[in-house]
This record gives sequence, C-alpha cells and structure tokens, in this order.
Amino acid sequence: MPAPSPASYGPELEPRPVEEVDWLLLNADAVVTCDEAMRTIGVGAVAIQADRLAAVGPSEELARRYRGRRNLDLRGYLLMPGLVNTHTHAAMSCFRGLGDDLPLDRWLHEVIFPAERVSVTPEMVYWGTLLSCLEMLGNGITTFCDGYFFEESAALAARDAGMRAVLGQGILDHPTPDHPDPSTARTRAEAFLESFPDVGDRVRPSLFCHAPYTCGPSTLRWVKDLCRERDILFQVHVSETEWEARAIQEMYGMGPIPHLDVLGVWDDRTLAAHAVWIDGDDARLLADRGAAVSHNPSSNMKLASGVAPLPVLMEAGVTLGLGTDSCASNNGLDLFREMDLTAKLHKVSRLDPLACPARRVLRMATVGGAAALGWRGRIGSLEAGMKADLIALDIRQPHLTPMYDGASHLVYATRGSDVRYAWVDGRLLLEGGRFKETDAVRAMAEVRKMALTLAKRRGG
Amino acid sequence: MPAPSPASYGPELEPRPVEEVDWLLLNADAVVTCDEAMRTIGVGAVAIQADRLAAVGPSEELARRYRGRRNLDLRGYLLMPGLVNTHTHAAMSCFRGLGDDLPLDRWLHEVIFPAERVSVTPEMVYWGTLLSCLEMLGNGITTFCDGYFFEESAALAARDAGMRAVLGQGILDHPTPDHPDPSTARTRAEAFLESFPDVGDRVRPSLFCHAPYTCGPSTLRWVKDLCRERDILFQVHVSETEWEARAIQEMYGMGPIPHLDVLGVWDDRTLAAHAVWIDGDDARLLADRGAAVSHNPSSNMKLASGVAPLPVLMEAGVTLGLGTDSCASNNGLDLFREMDLTAKLHKVSRLDPLACPARRVLRMATVGGAAALGWRGRIGSLEAGMKADLIALDIRQPHLTPMYDGASHLVYATRGSDVRYAWVDGRLLLEGGRFKETDAVRAMAEVRKMALTLAKRRGG
Repeated sequence: MPAPSPASYGPELEPRPVEEVDWLLLNADAVVTCDEAMRTIGVGAVAIQADRLAAVGPSEELARRYRGRRNLDLRGYLLMPGLVNTHTHAAMSCFRGLGDDLPLDRWLHEVIFPAERVSVTPEMVYWGTLLSCLEMLGNGITTFCDGYFFEESAALAARDAGMRAVLGQGILDHPTPDHPDPSTARTRAEAFLESFPDVGDRVRPSLFCHAPYTCGPSTLRWVKDLCRERDILFQVHVSETEWEARAIQEMYGMGPIPHLDVLGVWDDRTLAAHAVWIDGDDARLLADRGAAVSHNPSSNMKLASGVAPLPVLMEAGVTLGLGTDSCASNNGLDLFREMDLTAKLHKVSRLDPLACPARRVLRMATVGGAAALGWRGRIGSLEAGMKADLIALDIRQPHLTPMYDGASHLVYATRGSDVRYAWVDGRLLLEGGRFKETDAVRAMAEVRKMALTLAKRRGG
Repeated sequence: MPAPSPASYGPELEPRPVEEVDWLLLNADAVVTCDEAMRTIGVGAVAIQADRLAAVGPSEELARRYRGRRNLDLRGYLLMPGLVNTHTHAAMSCFRGLGDDLPLDRWLHEVIFPAERVSVTPEMVYWGTLLSCLEMLGNGITTFCDGYFFEESAALAARDAGMRAVLGQGILDHPTPDHPDPSTARTRAEAFLESFPDVGDRVRPSLFCHAPYTCGPSTLRWVKDLCRERDILFQVHVSETEWEARAIQEMYGMGPIPHLDVLGVWDDRTLAAHAVWIDGDDARLLADRGAAVSHNPSSNMKLASGVAPLPVLMEAGVTLGLGTDSCASNNGLDLFREMDLTAKLHKVSRLDPLACPARRVLRMATVGGAAALGWRGRIGSLEAGMKADLIALDIRQPHLTPMYDGASHLVYATRGSDVRYAWVDGRLLLEGGRFKETDAVRAMAEVRKMALTLAKRRGG
C-alpha cells in the first residue's frame, strides 16, 4: 500500500502548527469509533503518538494538523477499535476439534480430560497460547481474557505476541495439571502472582475459580479475597448448563448466582462466563453488584448448553462482553463470528427481529468487553487519549460490497479474515495480513507436533 | 506455488502406462471426498481431464499413473467438492445490509420493496448476480440455485462467472419489476424459457413461485405443469414464518405443505426453501414425494422466522441442501458459515450435542445440495467420473491448526476466506484467491454505483 507523503493532501488553507506523530492513518472509508454516540466518520483518520490515540476525526482535518513519521493510506479500509475477547482458554488451540460431536460427559471424560492429563505442560501452554494469539490478532482481537493452567507461560506468549491480556490461573478443588494436590492451591496461586512476568500494565494476572461445582465455598471465598487484596480480576464459569444450575440448587438451596452472592463473589472486579441458566432476578443481582458477564454463543450452541437470556441481561444493565470460549468447543477464535451469532441467535430464540441490534452487539465486543476486564475508558473505542489498540479491515471485497452502514456491516457481513492491520499500544502487530513480531510458521509447527503426539497416544 | 514436474515424484517402481490429463493436483494434506463412505484421503490427489474427474486417490498412486499438462502441488491444502448453495437471490447483493434490524413488515414494505421498485432492472440483476457469483466462488460455492426477476440477466452473469447454476424466474400474482401485469405472468415465463441463454447444461432455467400466499392455486398449478413439461426445477418459499403457516391454514383449511400437495406441487423436481413451520407429518409427506428442502439458518435467524425442525426432516429422509438466502437477509453468501450455524443451531435448540453432526451437515452442503438441484451423481463428491467442480482450502493457517478430523474442521473451523482455488467443469476460476475470468473491480464498482443512487433516493 502506498504511503503518500503529507504534501499530497494539498496546500494548507488555514496555516496552523503541524504536530508530528508516530502514525498517521488517513483516508479510511469509515472510522467506526464505538464512542458513546456510536459515531462513524466517513473518510476518517487516526493519529497515533506512542501508545495513545492523539486524534480521531475527518481525514482532511487530521492531514492538516498532523505529520506522520509513518503514514498509511487506508482508502478501501475501515478502521475500528481492536476487539476484546472476554473468555477463552487459549492454550486449548492444541485440542481444536478433538472429539467433536460427542455427548458432553463423554467428550469431557473420554477426550478432553485425558488429553489434558497427558499434554498440559508449560511448553504446551506457551505454544498453544501463542498460536491462539496469532489467530486472535489475525481476526482483529487485540485484547483477551484467559483462564487455564501454567498461566505464567500464557503471559510469556501474550508478551511475545504483543497482545493485551488478562490471564487467569485456573483453580479447582481437584488435581489439575499444575497443582496435583488441591490442598496446595493457595500456595500455587500466590506463587503465580509473585512470579507473574512484568509486561507492564498490558498483561495482567487474574485468578479463575473454575465453577461453583468444582470449587467449594471456602475456595471461592479465599480466591476472591486474594483477588480483592491484589486488585485483580476474579473469573468464574457460572450457570453454564442446566445440570450445574440444578446441582447447585440441590447442594446449597439456591441457584448459582445467589450462592456466589452469599459468598461475596460479585463485584465490579468479577467476570462470570456463560450465565446461561439464569433468570431476571439473577440478572438484576449481577447488575446491582456491578459484575460483568461474558456471553459465549458458539460454545453454548456447540455444547448444547442452552441459550443465555441475553436480552434479559441487557435490560437489567449488566456489563456485557463477548467471548469465544476455547478452540475445543467453538472451534475458532473469531469475534466477528460471535457478533453475528449473538445478533442472530437471540432474534430467532425470541422470534423478535429487534432483539439484539447490531449496534448493541458491536458495543459488547468493544467497549463492553473493555469495561468487563477493567479497562473502561482505556480501550474499546477510538477517541483521543485512548490506548492505540485498533484494527483496519479491507472492505473492498465482493462480500463487503456495497456498504450502507458500518456497524451493521461489521456484525453481519465482515469476517475475521478481513482484518489486515492491527496495532496494540501503538505497535503494529499485523501488517497487510502478516504477523510482524511472531514466527507463525514455528508456532503452527510446534502445535502440530503436540497434536500428532496426542493423536498417536489416542490410537489415531 | 511451485508446480513440480512429474519427474520429481521419483522413479516408477512398477512401470505402467502414464496417462496425460489436463490437471494433476498432488500432495493435498487431505482430500475430503464426500463420497458415500465420507472417505478422507490423507496426502491425496485428483486428476482432471476436460470437465471430469479422471481419478481421485492417494497422491503417490496418481503421481505414478498420470502426467498433468498443468500441475499443482497442494501441500498445506485440503481438497473437497465445490459447495452447493441451494437458495439465494443473487442480485440482491445490491441491497446487502439495507435497513437491518427493523421489524419484518417495516423492512419489507419500507425498505426492500421500495428499493426493488426503483432499482431492479436487467442491468442491476446482471451486476448484482455477477458480484454474488464472485463472492460465492471466493467462498468455495461452485453451484447455486437462484430465484429473482430478469433471470435471463442472471444467466449471463453465471455464464460470465463460469459457475454452475439453476436460475428461477420469480412469479407472483402481484406486479413485479419484470412483469407489472400479473395476468401476463405465463407469457413472461414462457418467453423466459424460450430466450434462456444456451450455456450448455451448466446453467439451467427454473421457475420460482414466490410463496403459497403470493401465488394462488391456479398459478401454482400452471407453473408446476410448465416445469414438468420442460423437465425443469420448480422452486417455492414455503412455511417460512408462523404468519404464513397460519394464513394458509385459514385460507385453505390446511397447512402449506398439504395445501401444495393437493395442488400436485411436490415431486423430485420441486425444491422448497425454508420449511420452518412444519411438523413430522409434513416432513414425511415431503420425503414420500421425493421433494427437496433448502435449509437457510442465517436468514431464518436474522429475520426471526424461527428454527426449522431440521432433525425431523433428517429423520424423515427428506433430501436436504443448505442455502444462504439473499444478502439482504444474511448478509453474506458463505456456506461455511451456514454449515457451522446449522450444526450449532439445532444442537442448542434441542439441548442435544448429537443433533446435526458435522458429517451430516457437510453432506447437505455438497451431495445433498446436488441431489436437491437434480445433479445427483454428477456433482457434490470427488469420485472418478464426476464433474470437476472442486475447491482447495489453505489449511496451514493459525485458525486451522491443528487438524484432527477433516469433516469436523470444514464445519466448525474453516471459513469461506480459506478457499484459494476453485474449478467448475474442470475450468480454473479462482487461483490463489484471485478471480481468473471476471473483473471483480468492475463488478464491485457497478454495484457500488447502484447502491449510491439508491442511498441518495432514500435520503441517505
């Protein structure tokens, strides 16, 4: 793509000081800002200085005010905030599509758990997470929220990929690949927090209680207390299946949402994944406490978990983000697909074409996700002063022609594969569809090697 | 991609006659044949002679038996049959995303019908269909079944794009863009069939009665009679919405499926689109008559029409294909997305992870669609003697790594954008992701021009 010199934008009509910035992105067909007013700027531009957006506005205006040390002519492209994936288990890319189309209990007990027992190591977590980072970046996801084991290794992968991330060390009352003795879980969690690699504020640690049926009340309490003490995000899978909701009701005499409320889990630093089997009271409770929910339509559909009552959560005012869940239950990390699914699934579930409009869904995948992870006002929209996490999509393709409305287009027509450029903290990580900082061939080869070993062990 | 000379495959161990073919595609990581046994050949090859598959088998074997006039080394690629889109209105790409997120009646009466009144011309149908052909080819769809107005123009577009198609002239008891006087519909239909451009058997005419609520009994009868006389496919939208099913029940004292049965519409040359509001008796009736159904999950979800009882249709043994419907209600033409949706939607609707396994869904998008359109045994699977309609996907990408099972991968992980090569009738139409025969830039520009005019008229 030719990078025209600033001189090519014509003479200054009203001379004013020209500021030099690191990046000047000009002439985008549309800049979908995802700001409060959901403004789209036709023929728009963005100026980036260091890790921040210096300005967002009409291209003509920015061309007069700024001179870029690096310039990019984005004719034929759409600029938007990088997407925020609020729920995944990135290392599980190694298990992509393993044992599809089995009943849930057989899939877990005969396929996934045995596979995890033999293959989850720090090395697997590093390469699996790195591969997922590449997939996510390629699909325009610049921030992700993770939960798995050996999450120190996930932190190294996020660091090496240049992504923004919240990485939750998984905690269960059962043996896990990285703490075989559950009684040492607290020591393990503290060690994780102490040894967490320093990648600045871009990569943050978190603790992830697997679920209320795998973590007893005392575990849930100490983990949440530790999170409060360190001011980090607490994550938990909750009300994912009907079985779980019924089991918690039987064990504790109340559903999962009130049960966790009694334990003091819900506040604005808690993120609940799934929340499928909940009702209006649960939604209002979550909203009152300021807790966030990650909606994962692909995973809930593929595992036949159920349809989360998203319109009820929206109505209650719960902070909402979208998540892909892992490659084992999806089988990809593409939030464009999740946006499309979200907008469509709730329309058909309620037989209401107005349920979940595109604009609301687009906000979930951007500002909503940012708020859910504790980055409200930092990422998720394109406004001066925000972090420079943004992506550019090639919209001059048959499947994106014509375009009547940017927001609707992003939800119903674009795909992750349309993303060509991605910046995180002002750093260009994807250029013309190619990864700038990471050896994708190596990451694929490492994961393929692990998959072959696993397939052989399984008698494949 | 380097095209190695046959000599590079090593000396002949057992000399046998080497046959020369037009294309020799070697070393594909997987050849997913979609044959009766759903065989996948690891390190597979395909030999193409003229418009037919000369052989499909292990790469080593075909390298010994054939010499290609053109050769392609498909290391890192997956070969499979071209996909069959059994329901679309291709010209409506011009309305992609027009008036999204409105209630159905307002969307139709305030947006789509007025847009059609001012913009549907032979020229619009040509360019809109051509653009859709490019989108479909790019997504690995090599055959499509269409219904719209001025379908002679659609035939020219399909001819120019090189695709295989069944093109149905739309018939209603109301004025339409190409026959303002419904009383002349029969003359119009006959003129359409007489003047249908001769593109050999690759592009076939069809007649499309819009729906039982827009076509009265006498129209449905004469159109089906005319189709029988000419041995062409009869298409009809049926039981798409609850409103329709109730309206037909009230008008005729029975649901849409029995109503059309009384009129003699159902046989193995009739294709019903949607079939959402039907029951087990309807499904068994369709199966008994040999009629086919096109399942359109995206459109049914986005318009909030409902969830078709696909497992009931499967159980009854109805011939099933998948369709995208038009860009106005989807908003894209990607059967990989429809496969993923189909597999997931019915799992979650029935809370059954075994509903709609990937293999069944993959068959719908290939051999099922072929059977629905009257091309059973000619297209839809990769077997010697079949038409050379096939596609190659680049599977060495992060989001497709690792691969444990080809069929599952194609349904849950791949996207239309992974398709790099497409052949129809042995003719290479897509090469390395680029269109060989059609000027995509021109097609996009023409449709964009029409969209701008339309947006201006609408006060945009």
